[in-house]
Amino acid sequence: MQIPAPAPSDKFSFGLWTVGYQGRDPFGEPTRAPLDPVRSLHELAALGAYGVNFHDNDVIPFGVDEAERQRIIDRFTKGLADTGLVVTTATTNLFTHPVFKDGGFTSNDRDVRRYAIRKVMRNIDLAAELGAETYICWGGREGAEFGASKDIPNALDRYQEAFNLLGEFVTDRGYDLRFAIEPKPNEPRGDILLPTVGHALAFIETLDRPELVGVNPEIGHEEMAGVNAAHGYAQALWQGKLYHIDLNGQNGPKFDQDLRFGAGNVRGAFWIVDTLLIGGYDGPVHFDYKPSRTEDDAGVWVSAAACMRNYLILREKALAFRADPEVQEALLASRLDELAVPTLAEGEDWRALEQADLADPEELAVRGMAFEHLDQLALEHLYGVRG
Amino acid sequence: MQIPAPAPSDKFSFGLWTVGYQGRDPFGEPTRAPLDPVRSLHELAALGAYGVNFHDNDVIPFGVDEAERQRIIDRFTKGLADTGLVVTTATTNLFTHPVFKDGGFTSNDRDVRRYAIRKVMRNIDLAAELGAETYICWGGREGAEFGASKDIPNALDRYQEAFNLLGEFVTDRGYDLRFAIEPKPNEPRGDILLPTVGHALAFIETLDRPELVGVNPEIGHEEMAGVNAAHGYAQALWQGKLYHIDLNGQNGPKFDQDLRFGAGNVRGAFWIVDTLLIGGYDGPVHFDYKPSRTEDDAGVWVSAAACMRNYLILREKALAFRADPEVQEALLASRLDELAVPTLAEGEDWRALEQADLADPEELAVRGMAFEHLDQLALEHLYGVRG
Amino acid sequence: MQIPAPAPSDKFSFGLWTVGYQGRDPFGEPTRAPLDPVRSLHELAALGAYGVNFHDNDVIPFGVDEAERQRIIDRFTKGLADTGLVVTTATTNLFTHPVFKDGGFTSNDRDVRRYAIRKVMRNIDLAAELGAETYICWGGREGAEFGASKDIPNALDRYQEAFNLLGEFVTDRGYDLRFAIEPKPNEPRGDILLPTVGHALAFIETLDRPELVGVNPEIGHEEMAGVNAAHGYAQALWQGKLYHIDLNGQNGPKFDQDLRFGAGNVRGAFWIVDTLLIGGYDGPVHFDYKPSRTEDDAGVWVSAAACMRNYLILREKALAFRADPEVQEALLASRLDELAVPTLAEGEDWRALEQADLADPEELAVRGMAFEHLDQLALEHLYGVRG
Amino acid sequence: MQIPAPAPSDKFSFGLWTVGYQGRDPFGEPTRAPLDPVRSLHELAALGAYGVNFHDNDVIPFGVDEAERQRIIDRFTKGLADTGLVVTTATTNLFTHPVFKDGGFTSNDRDVRRYAIRKVMRNIDLAAELGAETYICWGGREGAEFGASKDIPNALDRYQEAFNLLGEFVTDRGYDLRFAIEPKPNEPRGDILLPTVGHALAFIETLDRPELVGVNPEIGHEEMAGVNAAHGYAQALWQGKLYHIDLNGQNGPKFDQDLRFGAGNVRGAFWIVDTLLIGGYDGPVHFDYKPSRTEDDAGVWVSAAACMRNYLILREKALAFRADPEVQEALLASRLDELAVPTLAEGEDWRALEQADLADPEELAVRGMAFEHLDQLALEHLYGVRG
Repeated sequence: MQIPAPAPSDKFSFGLWTVGYQGRDPFGEPTRAPLDPVRSLHELAALGAYGVNFHDNDVIPFGVDEAERQRIIDRFTKGLADTGLVVTTATTNLFTHPVFKDGGFTSNDRDVRRYAIRKVMRNIDLAAELGAETYICWGGREGAEFGASKDIPNALDRYQEAFNLLGEFVTDRGYDLRFAIEPKPNEPRGDILLPTVGHALAFIETLDRPELVGVNPEIGHEEMAGVNAAHGYAQALWQGKLYHIDLNGQNGPKFDQDLRFGAGNVRGAFWIVDTLLIGGYDGPVHFDYKPSRTEDDAGVWVSAAACMRNYLILREKALAFRADPEVQEALLASRLDELAVPTLAEGEDWRALEQADLADPEELAVRGMAFEHLDQLALEHLYGVRG
Repeated sequence: MQIPAPAPSDKFSFGLWTVGYQGRDPFGEPTRAPLDPVRSLHELAALGAYGVNFHDNDVIPFGVDEAERQRIIDRFTKGLADTGLVVTTATTNLFTHPVFKDGGFTSNDRDVRRYAIRKVMRNIDLAAELGAETYICWGGREGAEFGASKDIPNALDRYQEAFNLLGEFVTDRGYDLRFAIEPKPNEPRGDILLPTVGHALAFIETLDRPELVGVNPEIGHEEMAGVNAAHGYAQALWQGKLYHIDLNGQNGPKFDQDLRFGAGNVRGAFWIVDTLLIGGYDGPVHFDYKPSRTEDDAGVWVSAAACMRNYLILREKALAFRADPEVQEALLASRLDELAVPTLAEGEDWRALEQADLADPEELAVRGMAFEHLDQLALEHLYGVRG
Repeated sequence: MQIPAPAPSDKFSFGLWTVGYQGRDPFGEPTRAPLDPVRSLHELAALGAYGVNFHDNDVIPFGVDEAERQRIIDRFTKGLADTGLVVTTATTNLFTHPVFKDGGFTSNDRDVRRYAIRKVMRNIDLAAELGAETYICWGGREGAEFGASKDIPNALDRYQEAFNLLGEFVTDRGYDLRFAIEPKPNEPRGDILLPTVGHALAFIETLDRPELVGVNPEIGHEEMAGVNAAHGYAQALWQGKLYHIDLNGQNGPKFDQDLRFGAGNVRGAFWIVDTLLIGGYDGPVHFDYKPSRTEDDAGVWVSAAACMRNYLILREKALAFRADPEVQEALLASRLDELAVPTLAEGEDWRALEQADLADPEELAVRGMAFEHLDQLALEHLYGVRG
Repeated sequence: MQIPAPAPSDKFSFGLWTVGYQGRDPFGEPTRAPLDPVRSLHELAALGAYGVNFHDNDVIPFGVDEAERQRIIDRFTKGLADTGLVVTTATTNLFTHPVFKDGGFTSNDRDVRRYAIRKVMRNIDLAAELGAETYICWGGREGAEFGASKDIPNALDRYQEAFNLLGEFVTDRGYDLRFAIEPKPNEPRGDILLPTVGHALAFIETLDRPELVGVNPEIGHEEMAGVNAAHGYAQALWQGKLYHIDLNGQNGPKFDQDLRFGAGNVRGAFWIVDTLLIGGYDGPVHFDYKPSRTEDDAGVWVSAAACMRNYLILREKALAFRADPEVQEALLASRLDELAVPTLAEGEDWRALEQADLADPEELAVRGMAFEHLDQLALEHLYGVRG
């Protein structure tokens, strides 16, 4: 199997905070020096990436004055032009500064909520200017540790209010920008609002402009809830709401590991790639991971390159799996073709079903599903031991 | 604190399969003899229950002929009349018989799907006849263990088709019946479709008649996904979709324990009761638990009585918590009143916010939220050491 | 990469209860007919297996009389002779019958404990007669759901008493038989005693004859506790206590899935095989899994064959990984060679260390560990995309 | 129920890092100013605490010179004298500085290991000088994220070497000091060595001086592995190894929450207190928690006071539970008295058991265990609704 080198047409993108992660964790100080965002542009472009994205404060430190802000933006814009990299998405940091300790859009403190929304508006202007098409909203501080400290219905009202306001804002401004909510079950809050893809999809339907808002599922976040991440991606695609993706690695319910894509649940990763291909996802292939804090600068770029390479490996494998005649036969044996057919016949309704001649359940019960064979074929494609 | 005895006005209900659980588990045979459903009616009524509910096969064995079916129904109806118990909900067993080994509504096998839907229609007729107002749908077999064995978009199409058909069925029949989907992340399938309250709420919005379908969250199922169960109940209430509830106990992500209500995450239980009271939930208070298989018949009724008693204890505590002047003060100190106020002022829009004088974030950041004190008050109410 | 066919020299063994699993689960009835143990011998031998093992009641139904027992044993013994299969281990079913509802060795009911121990003694005689070298003890019912229902120190006393008695029994009988405790965190009990490899290893040290008792870690059981299964195997090997292994698949903390080996955490499986090879484990390679209940008889044997094939695939990969010169270089770059060297120099003691010239921590801190590169090499071996 | 005020005789102690936690987390900057350790002594003494403990760098910043070090120690010692607080334990920070990014005792880098051991020796001298009786060893950085990056047997050899050296060191120095290993399954490493109480207990048995080393289980760490924390404490007590305790709160497998004691699994907390009382634990009652970062300075002391109060509340409840005549009756009904009796009669051995008349298992099987009643009594004591 020949694995292609990453190319801009693959639409790989990286958050600046990923390669820029200095290795600070709850128990440790940084292990790496700060990384100049413009250097990251050059390194990523050299590795074959297509785009980048950032929180406002990844590029522009919190609280700098207007002149410094503009100087930084100009230099960054030049870096984009020099490298040909695209800004695919942007987002707001509503979590690092202590002002957000009880959340941004849903902080109990109304002054904080007002400040948070304006911080987002401010950065949306920049995002639009830089050509971002999607605005990511990770509400990592929107949540609670204690039952009474957050009135959930009120908090959801405030969350809804914020998205309605932002929807009006981008509409009035004429921006061609959609929002993507990134769910997470917990960390840094004990319990975060909209903890999974499902909760976010449900919430979106209550908004004034649901068409402007989709989801940005992160593999690791879904796995922290012990749910099948590929199923979450699939439901989001099925509901027309997979506006962006965050790929990385995680080993089950524990702290947020943000491993490079491929390191973690590798079978899960295979099925996510397969789901994206089958579902026709054509947005940026974005990695939201942290290079291990054990690494020096060289390790950072090794891990970034590996994210892309692993995606390409899995893409080749998923395509080979679907193209394999024995797999196609196995899919028929497992009756996947029947699942694609409506349960009712053309023109049939419940009255007709009520009267229809049905098969004897005892006879149906003994039909084997042949799933073990089908899954073993998939596994052997993953192992690279077929063909 | 005086704990009242359970009364029908409390609307406590039990699944017949709960007290009727014989103690069979994945590694063991039954430890208790089968329980006559009519005896259960009498026992539960004597304990103060209001209603019961059942899967078709809890009352009517799989595959009995029509005459036997009617005889059983007549006897059961007489039991209801004798005891004054109400049938609050009904549901279909789409999981025990091997025919459902790959699901009911979403089995790859189209014949199985047709059989499953008709089984549901059949039992909806009975449910309506017996006065049930809600029809529960737990799709415990709708799922997969293997990535390729279930095409998720197709499976969701089939799931949607089934609910659309059933919505048409109850509408055409003129039944005053709503459906409530009961989510579960896994067990017996490796991953179940619509794994949490959120996923089910999102799915419902895609149906032809979303108003006919809500959710029936089970505490234990949400806790199996490591998410905050009270938050799930709250989001369902907020979206107007809490059509029914399943109360029980669970200790985190592991197999489905179905402990009696109160035994498990007891703080979580307190907040669920508080959420239901604040949210104005007024449906049946339903227990879906399993008496420990270590128990004999006497233990079954002890555990059933304890479910109701624990709810009443927690109800009294939640009311006392909210009525406590020190708590009310603490809620203000934690600025819960501000969370109830829109972030924008009356008449304000994003343009106004853009121009508004905002508080300095550094000043906002030092305001303490006083959550530890508030939560300690709640805990002391739970402990019963206040007043 | 050429994957060899399974051969007896690979020492693959299967529990009779694995292929014999009929598909009964907590929510469903069997989907497959009972399997004649003697047929299983023939099928497994044909697939390349080396041995089998069994619970007493896998072969001899609970409660049959002496004559029937002997007839069954004779037929089974003939099956072994006909196929050349070896009985590698045996074990006692102390969990299916309702008598064990509160445990066997640690049931609160002393009569049950006495019955349980005698049941084990009885079956040890048979095990020895059939040539088993290891006697597995899975104490799945030794545990509790409720805090007061099990006094843990007393329960551990009883557990210890049982193992001491059995150690004396096999010693007195002159059997060449060692015990292997199989830990599990929960299911069917809410919490099981000796929940992980660690707890079992610690317990063993308190026994009269610790040398007679080791552990039999099951991959899925360790993963249910969210701990690294390969690390558990490694610690058991390091303590000289890896007397047997149970290989299968699991996807994190949830119900016990017992997937075929390879289906589940596939990276975890790779590292377990690597750990076994490096640690020189030379006992039977035993699979303790359940063919999916979606399968018919054909699927059972597909899954059994796949367990062995996946082990062989991973063995080839692990060997190739260790033999790869680039890997060997990467291991040096990550300083694995230094980890093999004592921290103190030859002859050095704490006094010498106290006086030694040590490197400056700031200089040490900037040395990168190069783990991302090393791990990516491993992953590419797993994917089969190297060489 | 009268809850006493905390008194030094209750032996409550706090890590200086607990109240001193400034609120930095993986996604956020500190929300509180640094706390002067000497102020903490005064505040804690005023609240009724008995002792404190610390990592070297909680008191003495990393890298200060000798003169400054002595000045800080003198001031701290004076604070102890002024407040009457005792130093109960001490420990070494082997995790914050980047030098420890791959561990301390088990870093692949031998220079780091040498540095780490000497840092410990250095601080043990101080600990002994200040009168600490126990030296805590939390090896939070001893672990791995990647399979090949840590050779587990070699790492365990190094771990063992370090403890053997330190055991020799304290013995030679004549210190009356024991070590307590604090297990944790993960965070900050993907998988930490000695992940649970069980693994640590097993490891200790391999040391040269096992009597010098016990465990310091932290509630939250055990719950992160989904195991029953009280059972872990009980096994440690049973093996004579519960040298110290870390009390706090956690809600299941997720990031390390370090909630105040009582906030988290409150039923679990009740059983831990009961286990400590029954097991006769008489060491310091130590809290290792983090005041929520939502709090200002006032909230810090509220949470510290609440830890002690919750312990005292649970202690009163546990005592009341055990003293309740109905509970004592229920314990008999659940046959806890039988569990305390050896399974073999006085003088009986396996030969006698083999010949003994045993009860009929079918008769034993129908005996109910009456656990639901017993557990409901416990729950009602927890709720404070009895008596």
